[in-house]
Amino acid sequence: MNILIINGPNLNLLGEREPGYYGSDTLASINAGLEEEAKKLGATLEFYQSNHEGAIIDRLHAARKNANGNIDAIVLNAGAYTHYSYAIRDAIAAIKLPVVEVHLSNIHARDAFRETSVIAPVCVGQISGFGSYSYTLGLYAAVNAVNKTAK
Amino acid sequence: MNILIINGPNLNLLGEREPGYYGSDTLASINAGLEEEAKKLGATLEFYQSNHEGAIIDRLHAARKNANGNIDAIVLNAGAYTHYSYAIRDAIAAIKLPVVEVHLSNIHARDAFRETSVIAPVCVGQISGFGSYSYTLGLYAAVNAVNKTAK
Amino acid sequence: MNILIINGPNLNLLGEREPGYYGSDTLASINAGLEEEAKKLGATLEFYQSNHEGAIIDRLHAARKNANGNIDAIVLNAGAYTHYSYAIRDAIAAIKLPVVEVHLSNIHARDAFRETSVIAPVCVGQISGFGSYSYTLGLYAAVNAVNKTAK
Amino acid sequence: MNILIINGPNLNLLGEREPGYYGSDTLASINAGLEEEAKKLGATLEFYQSNHEGAIIDRLHAARKNANGNIDAIVLNAGAYTHYSYAIRDAIAAIKLPVVEVHLSNIHARDAFRETSVIAPVCVGQISGFGSYSYTLGLYAAVNAVNKTAK
Amino acid sequence: MNILIINGPNLNLLGEREPGYYGSDTLASINAGLEEEAKKLGATLEFYQSNHEGAIIDRLHAARKNANGNIDAIVLNAGAYTHYSYAIRDAIAAIKLPVVEVHLSNIHARDAFRETSVIAPVCVGQISGFGSYSYTLGLYAAVNAVNKTAK
Amino acid sequence: MNILIINGPNLNLLGEREPGYYGSDTLASINAGLEEEAKKLGATLEFYQSNHEGAIIDRLHAARKNANGNIDAIVLNAGAYTHYSYAIRDAIAAIKLPVVEVHLSNIHARDAFRETSVIAPVCVGQISGFGSYSYTLGLYAAVNAVNKTAK
Amino acid sequence: MNILIINGPNLNLLGEREPGYYGSDTLASINAGLEEEAKKLGATLEFYQSNHEGAIIDRLHAARKNANGNIDAIVLNAGAYTHYSYAIRDAIAAIKLPVVEVHLSNIHARDAFRETSVIAPVCVGQISGFGSYSYTLGLYAAVNAVNKTAK
Amino acid sequence: MNILIINGPNLNLLGEREPGYYGSDTLASINAGLEEEAKKLGATLEFYQSNHEGAIIDRLHAARKNANGNIDAIVLNAGAYTHYSYAIRDAIAAIKLPVVEVHLSNIHARDAFRETSVIAPVCVGQISGFGSYSYTLGLYAAVNAVNKTAK
Amino acid sequence: MNILIINGPNLNLLGEREPGYYGSDTLASINAGLEEEAKKLGATLEFYQSNHEGAIIDRLHAARKNANGNIDAIVLNAGAYTHYSYAIRDAIAAIKLPVVEVHLSNIHARDAFRETSVIAPVCVGQISGFGSYSYTLGLYAAVNAVNKTAK
Amino acid sequence: MNILIINGPNLNLLGEREPGYYGSDTLASINAGLEEEAKKLGATLEFYQSNHEGAIIDRLHAARKNANGNIDAIVLNAGAYTHYSYAIRDAIAAIKLPVVEVHLSNIHARDAFRETSVIAPVCVGQISGFGSYSYTLGLYAAVNAVNKTAK
Amino acid sequence: MNILIINGPNLNLLGEREPGYYGSDTLASINAGLEEEAKKLGATLEFYQSNHEGAIIDRLHAARKNANGNIDAIVLNAGAYTHYSYAIRDAIAAIKLPVVEVHLSNIHARDAFRETSVIAPVCVGQISGFGSYSYTLGLYAAVNAVNKTAK
Amino acid sequence: MNILIINGPNLNLLGEREPGYYGSDTLASINAGLEEEAKKLGATLEFYQSNHEGAIIDRLHAARKNANGNIDAIVLNAGAYTHYSYAIRDAIAAIKLPVVEVHLSNIHARDAFRETSVIAPVCVGQISGFGSYSYTLGLYAAVNAVNKTAK
Repeated sequence: MNILIINGPNLNLLGEREPGYYGSDTLASINAGLEEEAKKLGATLEFYQSNHEGAIIDRLHAARKNANGNIDAIVLNAGAYTHYSYAIRDAIAAIKLPVVEVHLSNIHARDAFRETSVIAPVCVGQISGFGSYSYTLGLYAAVNAVNKTAK
Repeated sequence: MNILIINGPNLNLLGEREPGYYGSDTLASINAGLEEEAKKLGATLEFYQSNHEGAIIDRLHAARKNANGNIDAIVLNAGAYTHYSYAIRDAIAAIKLPVVEVHLSNIHARDAFRETSVIAPVCVGQISGFGSYSYTLGLYAAVNAVNKTAK
Repeated sequence: MNILIINGPNLNLLGEREPGYYGSDTLASINAGLEEEAKKLGATLEFYQSNHEGAIIDRLHAARKNANGNIDAIVLNAGAYTHYSYAIRDAIAAIKLPVVEVHLSNIHARDAFRETSVIAPVCVGQISGFGSYSYTLGLYAAVNAVNKTAK
Repeated sequence: MNILIINGPNLNLLGEREPGYYGSDTLASINAGLEEEAKKLGATLEFYQSNHEGAIIDRLHAARKNANGNIDAIVLNAGAYTHYSYAIRDAIAAIKLPVVEVHLSNIHARDAFRETSVIAPVCVGQISGFGSYSYTLGLYAAVNAVNKTAK
Repeated sequence: MNILIINGPNLNLLGEREPGYYGSDTLASINAGLEEEAKKLGATLEFYQSNHEGAIIDRLHAARKNANGNIDAIVLNAGAYTHYSYAIRDAIAAIKLPVVEVHLSNIHARDAFRETSVIAPVCVGQISGFGSYSYTLGLYAAVNAVNKTAK
Repeated sequence: MNILIINGPNLNLLGEREPGYYGSDTLASINAGLEEEAKKLGATLEFYQSNHEGAIIDRLHAARKNANGNIDAIVLNAGAYTHYSYAIRDAIAAIKLPVVEVHLSNIHARDAFRETSVIAPVCVGQISGFGSYSYTLGLYAAVNAVNKTAK
Repeated sequence: MNILIINGPNLNLLGEREPGYYGSDTLASINAGLEEEAKKLGATLEFYQSNHEGAIIDRLHAARKNANGNIDAIVLNAGAYTHYSYAIRDAIAAIKLPVVEVHLSNIHARDAFRETSVIAPVCVGQISGFGSYSYTLGLYAAVNAVNKTAK
Repeated sequence: MNILIINGPNLNLLGEREPGYYGSDTLASINAGLEEEAKKLGATLEFYQSNHEGAIIDRLHAARKNANGNIDAIVLNAGAYTHYSYAIRDAIAAIKLPVVEVHLSNIHARDAFRETSVIAPVCVGQISGFGSYSYTLGLYAAVNAVNKTAK
Repeated sequence: MNILIINGPNLNLLGEREPGYYGSDTLASINAGLEEEAKKLGATLEFYQSNHEGAIIDRLHAARKNANGNIDAIVLNAGAYTHYSYAIRDAIAAIKLPVVEVHLSNIHARDAFRETSVIAPVCVGQISGFGSYSYTLGLYAAVNAVNKTAK
Repeated sequence: MNILIINGPNLNLLGEREPGYYGSDTLASINAGLEEEAKKLGATLEFYQSNHEGAIIDRLHAARKNANGNIDAIVLNAGAYTHYSYAIRDAIAAIKLPVVEVHLSNIHARDAFRETSVIAPVCVGQISGFGSYSYTLGLYAAVNAVNKTAK
Repeated sequence: MNILIINGPNLNLLGEREPGYYGSDTLASINAGLEEEAKKLGATLEFYQSNHEGAIIDRLHAARKNANGNIDAIVLNAGAYTHYSYAIRDAIAAIKLPVVEVHLSNIHARDAFRETSVIAPVCVGQISGFGSYSYTLGLYAAVNAVNKTAK
Repeated sequence: MNILIINGPNLNLLGEREPGYYGSDTLASINAGLEEEAKKLGATLEFYQSNHEGAIIDRLHAARKNANGNIDAIVLNAGAYTHYSYAIRDAIAAIKLPVVEVHLSNIHARDAFRETSVIAPVCVGQISGFGSYSYTLGLYAAVNAVNKTAK
C-alpha cells in the first residue's frame, strides 16, 4: 500500500512558524515519525511539499492510476489553499483516489476564513486540531479507506 | 486512563438510520469494537447515549474532576446538537477536560446547516467522515491528548 | 390504521396562551374533536405532548416499526422547535414513517424566525394557519399518506 | 357556497410536467375530483387557470363582492408566481376574500427560491406537499374558513 | 404638452382597497382632479391602467416619439411591479422620455420589500407618501421636467 | 401658516458643490424662489442650515408647539445625515409635526449607501430627484399636509 | 429541423434602445440574418417576440411535442425576465425541449441584478455578450443540441 | 410578593466555571445573598436551576396563576438557551408574568452569537454585565415591575 | 463618590416624547428622583444632557481623572447615538472610567436597528427596558462598580 | 488571424475527469477538432494548458502585441480559476486583446461557487454549457470579435 | 504651500488613550514633529482638532479656495467618524482639495467595523498603521499631491 | 539596512497596463527612483517580481533570517493576490519580518472586491492611492519600521 503525504504552502516552515498554533516539530521530524508508523502498518510513504497551487495540482494528477502514479490514498494538508483553491478541489475530484484532509491546528477555532474548507466536500473526511498527531490519524484513516475500498 | 464516549440524538438508531450516510454498524457493535481497541491502549471506556440536550450536559458535568467523575478525556458525537447547542458548548468549556469531536459522515459535504459546529471552538479537534472508524480515531486522539497533557 | 398526534412545547397551554394567535380551544378539546373525526375514518389515535425536545425524539423513535411502535403515520406540531431542532429533523428522517407538519397559526405571516421550518424538508407536507382545523386537515393528510403508501 | 379554484403558470401541463414532483394527474382530472368532493360539501366550484400574472389579478378582482363575483372563498395555487408576485399579493389583500394557498409539491423541501411565498402573509393559511390531495385539503379549508366567518 | 398617467396593478381598486394605506379616493376621482389641474397648466392628459406587466410595457413603448406616441412625459405608479419588474425598468430606459415615479403611500415606511424600487434608477425622481396628492405633485414634476428639457 | 425649511450638511455649498449632481443654484437663490412661491400660497417661511447633527435636532425641537416654535410643517433636506442619523429620526418622531423629506438628486440612482433613508419611516413622504424643484414640490406637500390635518 | 427564436421584453425596440449596450441592429435585421444562416444549416426558423411573461410561457408550451408544436429546439433571449421569472423557468423545465439562453450584452459585466439568470439552470447553456452574433452562436448551439440528442 | 429565580444550563457550575467571565461566587452563595436582599424588600424567593430546556419551560408554566404557581415575577438567567430557545421565549409569552432577563457577563461584549437574545423581546427588560450583582438588580427590577402592575 | 448622569439626543423631551415608549416622567423629575436615591447611597450626582454627539464626547473627556473631572463612574443613556456612534464608543474606551449603559425602553424589543449597541462592548454592562427605573438600577450598578474597583 | 486557446487547471484530464459533467472527449481530440474548424475559417491556432495560475498569466502577457505575441484573440477556459483568480482577471484587462470565456459544463446549473465568474466582466462574452462544442462556438466568437474590431 | 492637519474625535487624548493601539506620543508632540518636517519641505502647517462632526465639516469648508481658505492639501485623521460619517465624505467631495487619509493604528487589523472607511473613496489615498509616523507619511503624500496637481 | 521590494501579478506590465489606474511609469523606472531614494537613506534594495503566488511565497521565505535572507524589511505590492491569497498572508505571518503593504491605486475607491486586503492584518500598515509615490512612502515606512524595532 502506497500513501502520498502532500503538504501545501508554508508547511515547509513548520517548527519555526507561529509555534503557538503549529507546534515546534519540523516537517522533517513529522515525516520521520510517519515513516516509522507506516512501517508498522505495512505501508510505503511518499512525501511532497510545495508552496505552488499549480504544483500541488500537478502532483495530485501524477498520483492517479491513469498516470501510473502507484498511489492508493493521499493525506493532504493544503495549508491556506484549503480555504479558496477550487482548482485543488477539482483536482481531488478528478483523480478518483481517497484523500484525507488534515490540519495541525483546529481550523474551526481560529479566524473566520479558516472555518471553511472548499476541498472538504470532495475528501473522504477531515481531521483537524491534534497538532502533528493529526498526520498520524490521517495516515490511519488513509489506510482504513484503502482497506474499505478493497473489500 | 478513563475515556468517556458520549453519543447524542438519534445515534441510538445507528444501523437502521439512513445507512447511506451512517453505515450499517449498530452503536452496540461500534462500542464493542472500541472496547477491544481501548484494551490494547490500556484505557477504560464508559459509554453514554441520550437524545436529551440537558442530559448530555448533566453527563458532561458529572465527568469532571470536581464531581469525582474520574474521566480523563471525552469522545463526543453530539449528533444534530453539534449545529446549534451553545449550551453543550458552554458545558464543554466549563468542565476543563479534553473533548474530541467526532462525526460518522463528512459534515462538510452535506446540508449547509451541518457545516457549522458550534462546539468545535471549545473541543481539542474534530474528526469527521470516516464512518464508525471516526470513533476509533477519536479514541486515539483522546488518549494522545491525555498523554500530551500529562507530560 | 394508527395515527400518532404529537404536540411540542407550550401547546399544553392552548386555550389560555395568546388566544389572538392560537385560538381559545384547549388541547384536550382539540384532541376530543380529532378522536371523533378519526372514528369516521376508521383510524385509531394516540396522543403525546411534551415540552422536552429529547422526549419528543424518544417518542418519535418509539413509534417506528422496528420498535413495535405500531404507528402508521404521525401528525406533528413541533411548536417552537420547528424553527431550530435539527435533532427532531434527524429523528423524523430516521424513523421512516410519514410525518405531517401542522401549525395553528400561519407561520409565514408572523415573526421572521417563524418562517423557517427546519423539519419541513423531511416531512410529507405542511399545513399552517387554519387554527385547530389544521389538525383535522393534518389527520386527513396522514390517512391519505398511509393509503397512498399502501397502494 | 361558491369556491373559486385558481391555478397559475404551468399548471395546465400537470400530468406531463416533471411527474416526479407534480404527479401524473392532469388538471382536468384533479378538477373533476374536486367537483365530486364539492358536491358532498354542498359547494359550487368555478375553475380558472392562466399563465399570465395580470390575468390572475383580473380574475381575483372579478371574484370580489364589489364586482358581483359571487365567490365566498378561493383556493389558489399560484405556481412560480408564489415566489415573487407582490402584485398578486396586493390583489389578495385588496379583495377581502379568504384565500387558501396550496402547492402540490412540498415547497419547503426543494430549491431555495421555492421556500419563500410572498403571498403567504395575506392568505388564510398554506397547504403544501400532498400532491393532488393538497387541493382537496384546500377545498376543506376554504369551506371551513367561510363557515368560521359566517358564525 | 401631453402627459401620460400610468397606473399599475390593483390601482383600479383604489377607494375600496386597504383605505388605511391608500385613502378613499377612487382612481376616477383622482384622474378627474388631475384633469382640472392639467388644464391650469396647459397640459393634456392621457390615462392608462393595467394589471398586466406586459401591457404596461407595451403602453410605455407606444408613448415614445418613434411610435408617434405624442407624449412628452409620464407619471407612473407601477404598484407592486415597482419592486421587481426589471422589464418595466428596461422599458423606461428604452423610451427616452422623462418618467416621474409616484406612490400613494410612503413606500419607505411599510414592508421591507416595498423599500426598494427597481425602476427608480431610470426615473427622473420619486414622490412617495402624499396620498392622492402624490399624483398632483407628480404632474407638476413632469411638467417641470419637460420645460427643463425644452430649455 | 408657517413652514420651516431645514437644510443639512454641505447644502450651504450648493451651486459650487458637485454641480453634476446638485445643480448650479445656490441655497440663497433656492430660498428666494421658495419665498416667492410661499407668498402665493399665503405661507411664511423660516430657513435654517447647519452642518451639525445636534444643531439640526435642536432646531427641530425648537419648532414644536410645546416650545412655542410656531411652525406648522417642515421641509427637510437632511443631506448625508439622511442615511445614518437615527438621532434626527427620533427628533422627527418626537416633535409631532409633519415633516416632508426632500432631496435634490435621485438618491435611489446613486451610491448604494444613499438608497436608504433612516428618517423616511417617520416623515410624511419623500420627494427626490427634481433638483431645486424638489424644494418647491416639498413646499406644496407641506402646505397640503397642514391643510389635511386642519380638516 | 425547426428552431424557435423567442425574444422577450423590450427586444422589439432593438436598434433604437440603448445602442451602447444593445447595438444598432433591429430585431428584423437580426432575424433576417438568422434566416439566411439557418438555410445553410438546413433548419427552418420560427420567430416570436412578446413583452408579456404569460405570452412567452404560452408560446413555450405550444412548442412542445405534446402540443404538436413541431419544434426541435429553442433559442431564447428572455430579456429582463431572465433575472426573476421563475414562471418561465418552470415552463422551460416542463416542455422537455433543449433551450439555448442568449444575451446581446455581457450580463456578467453590468448591473448586479443582471448577473443572475434564474432560467440558466434549466437551459442547455448560456451565450452572452457578442451582440447580435450571440443569436447566430445560439442557433449553432441549438442545432448542435438537436443533433447530439438525435444520436 | 413571591419571586422565582430561574437559572439555566451550566449555571450550577458557577464559581468553578470560567471565572474570568463568570466570577468566583457559587450559585448557592448568590442565592443566599438574594435571600437576604429579598427579606429587606419583603419578598419571598423560590429557586430553580436546570440544564434541561424542557424542564425550564415546565417550571415557567408551573409558575403561572392558572397553575396556582403563586409567583408574581421571575428573574431568569437562561444561560446559553438565551441565544436560541424560541421554545422558552414562547413559554414566557404564554404565562403572562413579568420576566426580568439577567446575565452575569456583558453578553454584548463577547462572542457574536451571544449578542442576540431571542427571549429579550418578551421580557420586561434586560440586565447584563454586572457579575453576581446582576441578580440583585434583577430582583429590584422584578419587585419594581410587580409594584407598577399593582398600581 | 461622584457619579455623572449623561443623557443623549431627544431625552430632553422626555415626558412629551412618544410616552408609549418612554413614559410620562420628565428628565427633570427623573433627575430629582435620582438625587434622592443618591443621597441614601452617599453619592453626589452631576447631570448632563446634549443632542450633540461631539458635546457628549467632550463631557466624557472632561470627566476623566487626567482632566480633574472628579468623577468615579458614569451612567449613560446615549439615545439614538447608541446605535452608530463609534466616536462615543472610542471616548468611553479612552477615559478609563466605569460606564453603565441604560435605556428606558427595551431596545431588544423594538426596531431592528435599536438591537445593536455599538457602545456596549466598552461599557461595564447594560440595563434596558425598565422605564425611568432603569436609571435607578444604573445608579446602583455604577456605585457597585466603583466599590468593586475600590476593593 | 491567430487565435490562442488557453485551458486552465484540470482540463488536461478531460476525457477521464468526471465525464458526467465534462464529457468523454480528451483535450487533444478537442484541439484537433478546433484545428480543422480553424482551417475552414482561415485562422491559425496556438494551444496552451497549465494548472498554474501564474503560468496562465505569463502566457496571457506573452500574447499581447507589446510582447510580439502575434495573437489576435483568445479563447479561455480558466477552469476553477474562473471563480476566484482576480490576478487572471487583471491580466486580461491589461493585455487589451479580445478574450472569449468558455466552459464545458453549464456553470450556472451546478455548485453555487461556480455561478460567479470573476473574469467575465473583462471578457468579451461568455459561452457555457455546450460540452466540447463550447470551444467551437468560442472560436467563432473570437473570429467574429477580431473582424468587428478590424472594421 | 499650506497644509491643514485635521484630527477628529478622541485624538486630543493621544498619549493617554489606549497606548497599546495609539502609542504614547501626544498630539502636541506629533504636531511639533510635523512642524519641523514641514519646514524642511518648505510647507506651512495649520492644525485643527475637534470631537464634533459638524465642526470638522465647517473646517473643511473653510479650507477651500472659494472661502479663501488658502489651503493646498489636507491630512485628515477622522478618528471613528472614518467609519460612518457620510457627511464628512460629502464635505471632502465638495471642497475639491486633495485630502490624504491617515490612521495611527492599522484599521485593517482590528475590529470589523474599523475595516471600512466611508471617506476613502473621495480621498487621494490612505495611510494606516505606522503610528505617529503615519502623519509624517501623510504630510509627504500631501506635498506630493499638490506638486502633481501643479504640474 | 536591506529592503526587499516585491511586486506581484501584472505589475511587470506597469506603464502600458490601464494607465488611468496605474499611471505611465514602468516598473523599471519606479525601481530606479527607489534606488536613488534608498541611497539617501543608507539602505540597499533588492527587487523581485512574479506573477506566481507560490514564487512570491518562496521569495518571502527566502528573505527570512533563518534562511540567511539578510533582509530587514519588505515593501510588498501583492497585486490582485492582495484580495484572496491567504497563502501569502500565512507566509508573511511566518517570516517575522516587517512587511509594508503598498498599492498604486486607491483600492478603497474601485471595485468592491478590491476593498478587502486579506494580507493587511499581518502587515505593519497599508499605503494606497498615491501612484508610484506609494512605493517611496512604503520605503520610508519600511526604514522607519526597522529603526523602531532596532530601538
